[in-house]
Amino acid sequence: MGKNKRDNVNIAYIGGGSKGWAWGLMSDLALEPQLGGTVRLYDIDQQAAKENEWIGNSLLTRDEAVGKWTYEAVPTLKDALTGVDFVVISILPGTFDEMDSDVHAPEKYGIYQSVGDTVGPGGLVRALRTIPMYVHIAEQIKAHAPDAWVINYTNPMSLCVRTLYEVFPEIKAFGCCHEVFGTQSLLADMLNELDGYSGVKRNEIKINVLGINHFTWVDQATYNGVDLFPLYEQFADRYYETGYEKERDKWKKSTYDFAHRIKFDLFKKYGLVAAAGDRHLAEFMPLNWYLKDRETIEHWKFHITPVDDRKRDQLAKIEQSRRLVAGEEKVELKSSGEEGVLMIKALLGLGDFVTNVNMPNMGQMIGLPLGAVVETNAVMTGNSVKPVLAGQLPRDIENLVVRHALNQETTLQAALTEDRELAFRAFINDPLVATLTPTDARALFVEMLHNTKRYLPEGMQ
Amino acid sequence: MGKNKRDNVNIAYIGGGSKGWAWGLMSDLALEPQLGGTVRLYDIDQQAAKENEWIGNSLLTRDEAVGKWTYEAVPTLKDALTGVDFVVISILPGTFDEMDSDVHAPEKYGIYQSVGDTVGPGGLVRALRTIPMYVHIAEQIKAHAPDAWVINYTNPMSLCVRTLYEVFPEIKAFGCCHEVFGTQSLLADMLNELDGYSGVKRNEIKINVLGINHFTWVDQATYNGVDLFPLYEQFADRYYETGYEKERDKWKKSTYDFAHRIKFDLFKKYGLVAAAGDRHLAEFMPLNWYLKDRETIEHWKFHITPVDDRKRDQLAKIEQSRRLVAGEEKVELKSSGEEGVLMIKALLGLGDFVTNVNMPNMGQMIGLPLGAVVETNAVMTGNSVKPVLAGQLPRDIENLVVRHALNQETTLQAALTEDRELAFRAFINDPLVATLTPTDARALFVEMLHNTKRYLPEGMQ
Amino acid sequence: MGKNKRDNVNIAYIGGGSKGWAWGLMSDLALEPQLGGTVRLYDIDQQAAKENEWIGNSLLTRDEAVGKWTYEAVPTLKDALTGVDFVVISILPGTFDEMDSDVHAPEKYGIYQSVGDTVGPGGLVRALRTIPMYVHIAEQIKAHAPDAWVINYTNPMSLCVRTLYEVFPEIKAFGCCHEVFGTQSLLADMLNELDGYSGVKRNEIKINVLGINHFTWVDQATYNGVDLFPLYEQFADRYYETGYEKERDKWKKSTYDFAHRIKFDLFKKYGLVAAAGDRHLAEFMPLNWYLKDRETIEHWKFHITPVDDRKRDQLAKIEQSRRLVAGEEKVELKSSGEEGVLMIKALLGLGDFVTNVNMPNMGQMIGLPLGAVVETNAVMTGNSVKPVLAGQLPRDIENLVVRHALNQETTLQAALTEDRELAFRAFINDPLVATLTPTDARALFVEMLHNTKRYLPEGMQ
Amino acid sequence: MGKNKRDNVNIAYIGGGSKGWAWGLMSDLALEPQLGGTVRLYDIDQQAAKENEWIGNSLLTRDEAVGKWTYEAVPTLKDALTGVDFVVISILPGTFDEMDSDVHAPEKYGIYQSVGDTVGPGGLVRALRTIPMYVHIAEQIKAHAPDAWVINYTNPMSLCVRTLYEVFPEIKAFGCCHEVFGTQSLLADMLNELDGYSGVKRNEIKINVLGINHFTWVDQATYNGVDLFPLYEQFADRYYETGYEKERDKWKKSTYDFAHRIKFDLFKKYGLVAAAGDRHLAEFMPLNWYLKDRETIEHWKFHITPVDDRKRDQLAKIEQSRRLVAGEEKVELKSSGEEGVLMIKALLGLGDFVTNVNMPNMGQMIGLPLGAVVETNAVMTGNSVKPVLAGQLPRDIENLVVRHALNQETTLQAALTEDRELAFRAFINDPLVATLTPTDARALFVEMLHNTKRYLPEGMQ
Repeated sequence: MGKNKRDNVNIAYIGGGSKGWAWGLMSDLALEPQLGGTVRLYDIDQQAAKENEWIGNSLLTRDEAVGKWTYEAVPTLKDALTGVDFVVISILPGTFDEMDSDVHAPEKYGIYQSVGDTVGPGGLVRALRTIPMYVHIAEQIKAHAPDAWVINYTNPMSLCVRTLYEVFPEIKAFGCCHEVFGTQSLLADMLNELDGYSGVKRNEIKINVLGINHFTWVDQATYNGVDLFPLYEQFADRYYETGYEKERDKWKKSTYDFAHRIKFDLFKKYGLVAAAGDRHLAEFMPLNWYLKDRETIEHWKFHITPVDDRKRDQLAKIEQSRRLVAGEEKVELKSSGEEGVLMIKALLGLGDFVTNVNMPNMGQMIGLPLGAVVETNAVMTGNSVKPVLAGQLPRDIENLVVRHALNQETTLQAALTEDRELAFRAFINDPLVATLTPTDARALFVEMLHNTKRYLPEGMQ
Repeated sequence: MGKNKRDNVNIAYIGGGSKGWAWGLMSDLALEPQLGGTVRLYDIDQQAAKENEWIGNSLLTRDEAVGKWTYEAVPTLKDALTGVDFVVISILPGTFDEMDSDVHAPEKYGIYQSVGDTVGPGGLVRALRTIPMYVHIAEQIKAHAPDAWVINYTNPMSLCVRTLYEVFPEIKAFGCCHEVFGTQSLLADMLNELDGYSGVKRNEIKINVLGINHFTWVDQATYNGVDLFPLYEQFADRYYETGYEKERDKWKKSTYDFAHRIKFDLFKKYGLVAAAGDRHLAEFMPLNWYLKDRETIEHWKFHITPVDDRKRDQLAKIEQSRRLVAGEEKVELKSSGEEGVLMIKALLGLGDFVTNVNMPNMGQMIGLPLGAVVETNAVMTGNSVKPVLAGQLPRDIENLVVRHALNQETTLQAALTEDRELAFRAFINDPLVATLTPTDARALFVEMLHNTKRYLPEGMQ
Repeated sequence: MGKNKRDNVNIAYIGGGSKGWAWGLMSDLALEPQLGGTVRLYDIDQQAAKENEWIGNSLLTRDEAVGKWTYEAVPTLKDALTGVDFVVISILPGTFDEMDSDVHAPEKYGIYQSVGDTVGPGGLVRALRTIPMYVHIAEQIKAHAPDAWVINYTNPMSLCVRTLYEVFPEIKAFGCCHEVFGTQSLLADMLNELDGYSGVKRNEIKINVLGINHFTWVDQATYNGVDLFPLYEQFADRYYETGYEKERDKWKKSTYDFAHRIKFDLFKKYGLVAAAGDRHLAEFMPLNWYLKDRETIEHWKFHITPVDDRKRDQLAKIEQSRRLVAGEEKVELKSSGEEGVLMIKALLGLGDFVTNVNMPNMGQMIGLPLGAVVETNAVMTGNSVKPVLAGQLPRDIENLVVRHALNQETTLQAALTEDRELAFRAFINDPLVATLTPTDARALFVEMLHNTKRYLPEGMQ
Repeated sequence: MGKNKRDNVNIAYIGGGSKGWAWGLMSDLALEPQLGGTVRLYDIDQQAAKENEWIGNSLLTRDEAVGKWTYEAVPTLKDALTGVDFVVISILPGTFDEMDSDVHAPEKYGIYQSVGDTVGPGGLVRALRTIPMYVHIAEQIKAHAPDAWVINYTNPMSLCVRTLYEVFPEIKAFGCCHEVFGTQSLLADMLNELDGYSGVKRNEIKINVLGINHFTWVDQATYNGVDLFPLYEQFADRYYETGYEKERDKWKKSTYDFAHRIKFDLFKKYGLVAAAGDRHLAEFMPLNWYLKDRETIEHWKFHITPVDDRKRDQLAKIEQSRRLVAGEEKVELKSSGEEGVLMIKALLGLGDFVTNVNMPNMGQMIGLPLGAVVETNAVMTGNSVKPVLAGQLPRDIENLVVRHALNQETTLQAALTEDRELAFRAFINDPLVATLTPTDARALFVEMLHNTKRYLPEGMQ
């Protein structure tokens, strides 16, 4: 074993037929000189996994590909997991048809959701069909790869990671999400606009992260030791009305884009930096703040991302996959901006790495329930991930976060015990749903479960 | 000292000009053979205290008055407190004009409140003017009666008690409220309707109490060892539509009355017994559940208690006080149903007593923030009040309660530091207010502070 | 069902062949007018159980016997447990031969133990053979009487109760011990010596209890509301040298007796009242304090209770049992001074009852590990036992107690996993053993396990 | 401001007349190219500070000195502190005469101490004179440098840091100690002895650190991702009898040296790596394990470090200082192996740094009291030190550590309130003292306080 190289790393990729994420990871692995080994691709869509096997292996022939990997599509979870060092999970729970119901069914009751995959009525129903899938995955990991490190990318992040630990408490799992990176980038952009700064990179922005996935907060931010809060205060003031964009009205060009107005508004109201995309942040607050109606959404310069957009993207990627396999197009070899490979290296002992992860609260977030999955910084080093003690949010913000954390605990219990009424109690306590009358909330709940019943256990249908 | 008698008990009554509460306490004291001593009446309305002095002392001349007491109106808090054994606090923070704003100002925004003294926009603004008063009282107790037992009856209960402990952590204080008694009475009534039961009294109903004042829950109830939950389930089913009343349509006769429909609804939804009057319970839930509009309120068979009703009652009592002093009427000597005198006896060593009290959480309620004031059972015995370990609410109900507990912590900090923006953050996170847009919430907040500015510190006006 | 009577109570008595305890309970039950039912006697010594069946039933014929009970010796635990309301456990783990080793084997290493059944080398080895027995009992209760209330009297108390909860977390169990009563009696005696007091009874002494079984402390004591600490300070001073006895040199007459000198010494050193017999207290402190050698023990006016004394008592009781069965002697019908029957009544809804019990720490003792079994007051009422929040010991005393509590946690894990080395780590950390060199400690440990191997699982022998 | 340089860093050095530590820091600063600024030297021995001023400034003229610094001896703490960015504290509390009593006075009672500055009778009495000094320092920092980072090097480490936080809770302080480095070095040496490894450096050994200063434990250690525990098990076995040394019998040459036998013994007994020098570890365990008598100490291949050795070293350093000032000798410019400068850089934003520090427990060590100072890893980055969640020790080791942690809490309270009896209770509960009779312990305590009374407040003398 070379001191700074690992040539025989075994990775299981669950959801290995995925198009966006999988290609990004393949690209990052190909560009990493210190690692090599095997990636086993498992997907319920075996054809997709097969295509990715072909695509991944073809990367090996490229000159820029310094990491030496073999990709192999495998037919069962057991085949994927047995004996691996790492498990990467990135699945779509159900299909975009179910997601269509999650996001759009509530609209007729005046509940608009910008993403619909984390909280709100959509996030909750998505969780109800995802948790049983993760129960199965956790059992398989326990049986076939109990010592592997498990990296989750699937949403709803908190509940996916929570389920893994509930089923297999000794699991070595954490969840990764790039939403915080976006806020670091915004702070870097802010600096680069100022005299005396240039070329500041997002990972040079040092932050303390507290909260739950997609509703994370930053209570300290420095660059080179300089406190960024006074600068951010001016920045938020300056761009409060217009929003901040590097390119004018860029937010209008994609339903995934936004102008950070919600982030600025939350800073002015609460004094801390909300560290996720505006589309996510909006869904954690009371309905009438940012998602009251389409005008309000436009006013705050963000969007509902229609599931039809996702379906169209998906079709384009399927076509792209075909072209890649047919050799009509090449995977672009460039860094994805994700940190998965950096984390794998750190866990293999190739350097320390500090970043934000989602893990059960063992005390790293004072004020949130023990056991609930929280997002804070953590130190990764040889075979170890240890959360950093992030501290406590101010009581007013804590109150906003605890509500969702406890709702997630309720949702987990409801899903595990197939207790439909308990699930409804979580549903009706979500800030987006809490504006409905109980009668309307019940009708919406029933409808959403009915729409997605293909992926729900009997007790939940 | 006789073993079973205390002849020289000194009590300070802050708010000693009060009419209803004071006369009840006087009556209970007069009927108690084991106690005697002095009651010092302090009130900012010195005339009212004087009248009560006269009324109290005149009771002594009655044959039924077995307790020997001297009533004395005193001009300052210091005079009232110096050297006493007990302090009873029962004040009206501000006047009914301020309460009029608390209760009715939000109505134009569609926010109806049945009581308006605990949570909701009214409860919060009431707290903002009450906390500074309690800061003063706590400082005076610390200076003049640090070893006295302090019994609070003023609302907002949780924040009054919380303020006393914040200012003087060694204080021996607790808060008493009869709302839980009402639920015990309902359970007794339920039994007395059944074959084989009769004459069951409310204090024979043994319950475990968890929660915060006016939003308490019962997770165990027995009578003579019999589990009452299966019986209550049938009872709630039977009377779910009609409500339960001992006398048909009695709830219509008084704006203080109600038919327990909300209590039954909460039981069917959550599986535990909500243990406060429906008027209080409604205010802790989302606006559109029970307080959506006047029709909804009528549907659930309870009322908004208009402050005009309170003003009218007050005028009647003033007139009654005049008549009592003039000897045209006599105080009715009968038990008030309150437990103050029983608690005083237990603290003096005359028997143990278990009842529900409001005290800072030192672990008696798992899941609620340490330090927040919670309501659970406690054991009172010689010079000691120890909370009973009440346990933890199910996560779904806990979530409803924690929200208010954290909001109260935020309100306290806002009041103590005169941080108007922090107060607004608590305001806008209240379930009744959370339905408003931030703009409307701000307008309402400003208006309510303006209306009550006579009793607010400068920073809050 | 009469409101104040329970005629069909079913009790399982595990260790039902016991002589002292069983006869006391039978006597208490016979004298209790509100209860009646069946007591099933189970004992590995079936003959002994049979004798007790006869003795118990013969009590029924006595005039003073107002409680109506049937006693029935049963052949299996399952027979005893199926369908009962209460389980009383009072067993001797092993025989007095094992106890002989527990108590006396360490003497050759200079380790003297006054009792040897709780902590110290003897208590720990006793625990190692008792825990597997309690694992079995807990499993049987889970299978056959999951809803029954379980009252434990066996030592080592903390670890017996701890094992029950470890194996069956939903168990409704608590442990009862009369050692605290002795301290209450001492305080009553103290008062009765003073002018102005007479006839004070031990249960009129109101105390707050904190600690672990046999090492409990009292930080507040009142009688009729009067603080007893200043009086106890004078009392401890006055009798510090001579010890306190109602009858001069009574302590010399029985190896179970003592003159409270250790209790007074601990009060003078630590400022709180140690609330157990001196024989127990001595074993929790460093060896050289009270158990250095036989002279020191005599100096402090207490004894090693030799196991030969216990054997002699046992033979006498066996003979007494024979006489009772033969009708040559009658059970004395008088209150045993134990509270078992009072607790059973409270749990059946016949009145509230506050007393000290041993239960897992859920927050009632701040500073001790959660889950460890602690002794505090608790409120017993219909089908409910809730610990009272006893608070926290001063750090210096807490340190003495935590050491044993953590040692007990270690012992439990060692016994459950049959980890002999872990057991040794607990052994060598006991204050009585900590004076030995590791080599001597090891030799003693091996010898004591060897002596008692008949009752140890293979991994421990 | 250059992005990677800080030219105007202001450091206060309390104890700035120190010889060893100060010269090491000066050397490290001179060799650091990214930093420059001013170091203010404060010492109660002003002459010593003056000499260091001269020595420090003379370093500037050396070619290898890339960091640009000005050294300035100042007459008062206030002068030293006002406006600085960092405070380094490295003082000798009292003189070596007091330390002579700390270390050697207990020997006549059979209590041997290898160091005598942390726990044991010597550590405790040292704490009693150090805490008042740290109260003063904390007050001065609060007044004159509230935003500075404070790095403590003085022993007793835990109680110095604890006092700083007790007096000024908002202080940004932590304590640094190189004892853990020694264990990392041992692990590196272990690897370098094996085939396939060479040149492994101590900071490449990744460890999780738990415990309290000088009694820290490692429950995970990796090098390049390889688990070092199986290797350490073999290593400890191989060298258990002989000890491990790079040079045969090197331990005999210095009373500061040792052969790691205690470390190996603790590993074999407890299964985790004790991570401090054997001289320190021995003092935390029961007296008869490693410090029973001089033969035992020799058997375990370590030493009592006589204070005469320290006095001799001190005289040599005074003479060396004279030579340095006279230009007869030059400070050797080489890295001290300490991490102070690396930490200063990280806090200034020049890179992240993970290392072990002493800070109050806010949850980073489950099982130890909140607020007690614990030693774990922490992440240092721009203006931020956040402990890593180190987890929990096994109950058996936790018990050993908690005892000292609670004893330190007791010692702190005793020192702050000048409560001599409370101090005695901590004293007699120390494992080295616990073997004495209370009478002997009292005599020793009185003698040691008398010996050091020059530095004790009146209440303690």
